[in-house]
Amino acid sequence: MNTLRLKKREDRRVRAGHLWVFSNEIDTDVTPLKGIVPGAPIELQSATGKFLAHGYANPQSLISVRITGRKASQPFEADQLRARLSKALTLRQALFPTPHYRWVHGEGDDLPGLVVDRFGDVLVMQISTAGMEAWREYLVSLLTELSGATTVVCNHDIPARELEGLDRESGVLIGAQPNQLQVVENGAEFIVPASVQQKTGWFYDHRATRRAVASRAKGARVLDLYSYLGGFGLQSALAGANEVVCVDSSESALAALNENANRLNVSDKVSTIQNDAVTAMRELYEKGERFDVVVLDPPAFIKRKKDRDAGSKHYHSNHKQALRLLNPEGYLYSASCSQAFSESDGIQAARQNLPRDYSALQVLGSVRQDADHPVHAAMPETLYLTGFCARMI
Amino acid sequence: MNTLRLKKREDRRVRAGHLWVFSNEIDTDVTPLKGIVPGAPIELQSATGKFLAHGYANPQSLISVRITGRKASQPFEADQLRARLSKALTLRQALFPTPHYRWVHGEGDDLPGLVVDRFGDVLVMQISTAGMEAWREYLVSLLTELSGATTVVCNHDIPARELEGLDRESGVLIGAQPNQLQVVENGAEFIVPASVQQKTGWFYDHRATRRAVASRAKGARVLDLYSYLGGFGLQSALAGANEVVCVDSSESALAALNENANRLNVSDKVSTIQNDAVTAMRELYEKGERFDVVVLDPPAFIKRKKDRDAGSKHYHSNHKQALRLLNPEGYLYSASCSQAFSESDGIQAARQNLPRDYSALQVLGSVRQDADHPVHAAMPETLYLTGFCARMI
Repeated sequence: MNTLRLKKREDRRVRAGHLWVFSNEIDTDVTPLKGIVPGAPIELQSATGKFLAHGYANPQSLISVRITGRKASQPFEADQLRARLSKALTLRQALFPTPHYRWVHGEGDDLPGLVVDRFGDVLVMQISTAGMEAWREYLVSLLTELSGATTVVCNHDIPARELEGLDRESGVLIGAQPNQLQVVENGAEFIVPASVQQKTGWFYDHRATRRAVASRAKGARVLDLYSYLGGFGLQSALAGANEVVCVDSSESALAALNENANRLNVSDKVSTIQNDAVTAMRELYEKGERFDVVVLDPPAFIKRKKDRDAGSKHYHSNHKQALRLLNPEGYLYSASCSQAFSESDGIQAARQNLPRDYSALQVLGSVRQDADHPVHAAMPETLYLTGFCARMI
Repeated sequence: MNTLRLKKREDRRVRAGHLWVFSNEIDTDVTPLKGIVPGAPIELQSATGKFLAHGYANPQSLISVRITGRKASQPFEADQLRARLSKALTLRQALFPTPHYRWVHGEGDDLPGLVVDRFGDVLVMQISTAGMEAWREYLVSLLTELSGATTVVCNHDIPARELEGLDRESGVLIGAQPNQLQVVENGAEFIVPASVQQKTGWFYDHRATRRAVASRAKGARVLDLYSYLGGFGLQSALAGANEVVCVDSSESALAALNENANRLNVSDKVSTIQNDAVTAMRELYEKGERFDVVVLDPPAFIKRKKDRDAGSKHYHSNHKQALRLLNPEGYLYSASCSQAFSESDGIQAARQNLPRDYSALQVLGSVRQDADHPVHAAMPETLYLTGFCARMI
């Protein structure tokens, strides 16, 4: 097996439990990265040659090593893959009443490079590292064996794969290509047509927040911004909202949303606006439309450091518009999936854009990715979805 | 009205929405604090004499001024007190099905110095500033008028009052001294005998976390550490836990817990241990006792900066003992009400004390004070209760 040695003092993060090693931390004079087959298993050593961890390496990637284990006697093998998939499955089966959840959340489940979302008997897999790609076939057999799932598809059109030198081809690995996915979330059934699927098809990470929003929706007028298929809006309608307005820029997403509204018998309460959210908010404000609950769940505005200023501005204008649309007793739910824009950044964006009639912003709770997207305690990077619920006083 | 002027550049925090002014920020050469009657209303000005805010002052307190409003035309008067109490009540009535909640949470409700907890027709009030004390009589009449409550008692044995030069006498302000309080939380009725009451009698701030714990309690063995009256443990028993062990150092709290267990018909599942939590955990571990859910909700170990090291150590040993008692698929719920020991500090305390058999800690969610304890967005100090739920992998 290949060995990679860290430079002096570069072992701290790894010793603190982190799972990544960057290329500049490796002593490439002693142990060159060059020549290692992308995805090959390696043994990681300290500068003095002490065993630190097992992992797999990729000389093409900025993250050169992902750690897979810390017992010298246990390199990453089929047994461990099985044990970790089982352990991850046990958690989800204990937490959720139906087989609709993120089964594997990469590093958060000690399985770097692997994401698996479950839609009943259909699994959608994303492999983002060469090290995990090497296990692809075995993974498919394990996943079906452990869950009884009949279909495994991969959704590989993700930039992360390019960074690892992997192709971006999606397709069926076992079973027949499904033309739609079925989700049951908080008791509500959604259909996701193949043609509109973003990412793996459904954002399970907001399950708990959707339940929280729905719990405040009775008798309310709800605005669901960046709605995609209306996870927030339709669940609010089912929970007794008087009226729900969903805003998204995607025509096909809104068409699928309306189909779901029909099927759930709430289409009389639900309307859609196809537009950029900020523009839509401006127009709603001009028309005097106000809401009791506003859900602001945009895509990541800050994906790279260089987006920081522009992204922050965009978050600010979103919060400004959203707060203006709230009734005096209304709630804002705000989420950010930009790591560089934290819960606290969001709260400050709201506070600084408080309409003149109010003196302060009350934060009533935090928004977090749901429990099937576990955060790895030694990797702050794995907390990616944060936000808050607030009210103006 | 008295005027207080800030020193140059000391207006930033106030302008950013914060409600406190410290004595060293005031230009006492120009506007002496000395001579101001504790609690008297003041007008706060910038160094150049521009109106900043209305507030009330106390020359005896480290926090010299608490801000009550920012409109020059609106000093703090009866109308505003009424409007803010109403606004605070509206939120709670919208959120909770029965009249059992924290009605007023001081700064979080724009009412510095005032806490009111509601137990049906009984209100427990805590006034911690001279400025609010000046309104005491009017407050009692407002509180009863707005809520229909028949009894108002004050629980004033709190150190904060001494810092403001106030007495620490508790007693009845209207109605008859109740010999117990009744709480309905997440559908479960608790009785709190007057003799065991800590703080205002009940910790409503954990309502949502108790519901979360109970939702994972079915069929489980649950350990409730620092249990007080068993808010976590008894609600878990009601939710179908197989067995619940509650640990507290207070004999009277455990006696009241057992009475509540009897009344709720779960006493066959509930046992109590009167001991220091860490000692109790050590003994449970030695006996081979293990749990599916462990709730670690200690009092504040770090109350002042000087407690930091000793307090941190104590948090660490608590986490170490708690994790050892978990079954492989078990959940730890950990809370801290020390401001100086954050959610992230708690996660690191758990991670660093992970038992050897495990490779990582998965954080499944955050713990926060419930929505009737709102955080003031411009005052990080008002976020006082944080924590997490985690599992070992």
